[in-house]
Amino acid sequence: MSQNVRLYTNSQYSSPYALSVYATLLEKGVPFELRTVDLAAGEHLSQDYARLSLTSRVPALVVGEFSLSESSAIIEYLEEAYPQPDFASVYPDDLEQKARARQIQAWVRSDLDALREERPTTVIFGARNPAPLSPQGQQAAEKLLTVADLLIDDQGNHLFESWSIADVDLSVMLNRLCANGDPVPGKIKRYVERQASRPCIQQWWALAKNIRSI
Amino acid sequence: MSQNVRLYTNSQYSSPYALSVYATLLEKGVPFELRTVDLAAGEHLSQDYARLSLTSRVPALVVGEFSLSESSAIIEYLEEAYPQPDFASVYPDDLEQKARARQIQAWVRSDLDALREERPTTVIFGARNPAPLSPQGQQAAEKLLTVADLLIDDQGNHLFESWSIADVDLSVMLNRLCANGDPVPGKIKRYVERQASRPCIQQWWALAKNIRSI
Ligand SMILES: [Ca+2]
Ligand SMILES: [Ca+2]
Ligand SMILES: [Ca+2]
Ligand SMILES: [Ca+2]
Repeated sequence: MSQNVRLYTNSQYSSPYALSVYATLLEKGVPFELRTVDLAAGEHLSQDYARLSLTSRVPALVVGEFSLSESSAIIEYLEEAYPQPDFASVYPDDLEQKARARQIQAWVRSDLDALREERPTTVIFGARNPAPLSPQGQQAAEKLLTVADLLIDDQGNHLFESWSIADVDLSVMLNRLCANGDPVPGKIKRYVERQASRPCIQQWWALAKNIRSI
Repeated sequence: MSQNVRLYTNSQYSSPYALSVYATLLEKGVPFELRTVDLAAGEHLSQDYARLSLTSRVPALVVGEFSLSESSAIIEYLEEAYPQPDFASVYPDDLEQKARARQIQAWVRSDLDALREERPTTVIFGARNPAPLSPQGQQAAEKLLTVADLLIDDQGNHLFESWSIADVDLSVMLNRLCANGDPVPGKIKRYVERQASRPCIQQWWALAKNIRSI
């Protein structure tokens, strides 16, 4: 494919869902251009952005004449439009492991609201939130750590035989706690550190930090 | 496949996500058994249900030794595990239309919170909510109707050339307004009525009404 690919993210680079699409593009080896949308200035509500995103949300992807929003739909589209062997896969080949990866992705997008609110991704690349978690936030953190303990082995390896996009989504969710200094068991810390050192994630937070330092 | 398939839903049958998996199983022609989880009694927090669902949420699917929660992951799994030509497909064949279907599904699962709260699915099979929408609910309703107007043609046909699972998710979201008597344009009403008359949806709400009448 030689069509131009553009990824739209929020201009603070704080969207974990934009990061997930960014990581997918990098890991697959799909060349793309990155564009920002200033949510604070209401740019996502413009007619142009509404037309391409349909839902006025970030992230959105444009490939030639086609455009799409919702990170999980974008990742599935990229996986099908840029298949093996010319491009790397971001999902496990095994049907049940692929299902588990999608389950994790859907879960971190739709549950644990209090944790996402009290530990925004800015604690990862910006400033810690010194406020203790509310009872709801604490409950969400405990649920996250309980599920992560079942999914992650003692060495803190990738979730499946090789890296998958679910490692990005789960590790970023866990890093809301790690980066903020909230208590996290050792094997989960090891898992998060390993994932955070992966170039696709490092480069993204570098962009986020760069914006803050301007 | 001859493995036993079980779908777990909440015992009120009010989960639009359980309905979406139920519709997928019926439309694909996969035989299954339906089990209920009493959320009010905390059954989803039991060790047994936590073990099979991982996230303690409904819906969950069990296929032989494998189990999975999160409706979007379950639907994708069923589509891959029970492929054409032996089983019907619930997604369009076309790559871009399939992406659009997934986008709609992801969107109705993660946006429009106020509408989902103020117009729960019980307005469809139970009792209307006479309270007017809050400003946030009104804003969500307008966003939903604006997007639906772009997606639905004047005749109120399926979103794509043939029926897809996105028709279930979008029409049920819209039916929160229609069934409650909130104002909805004619073509969207026609779309919702057509989808609501499909057996996979009719049978589900019949189960929900049956529970209420016991
Ligand atoms: Ca999104
Ligand atoms: Ca491993
Ligand atoms: Ca679910
Ligand atoms: Ca049509």
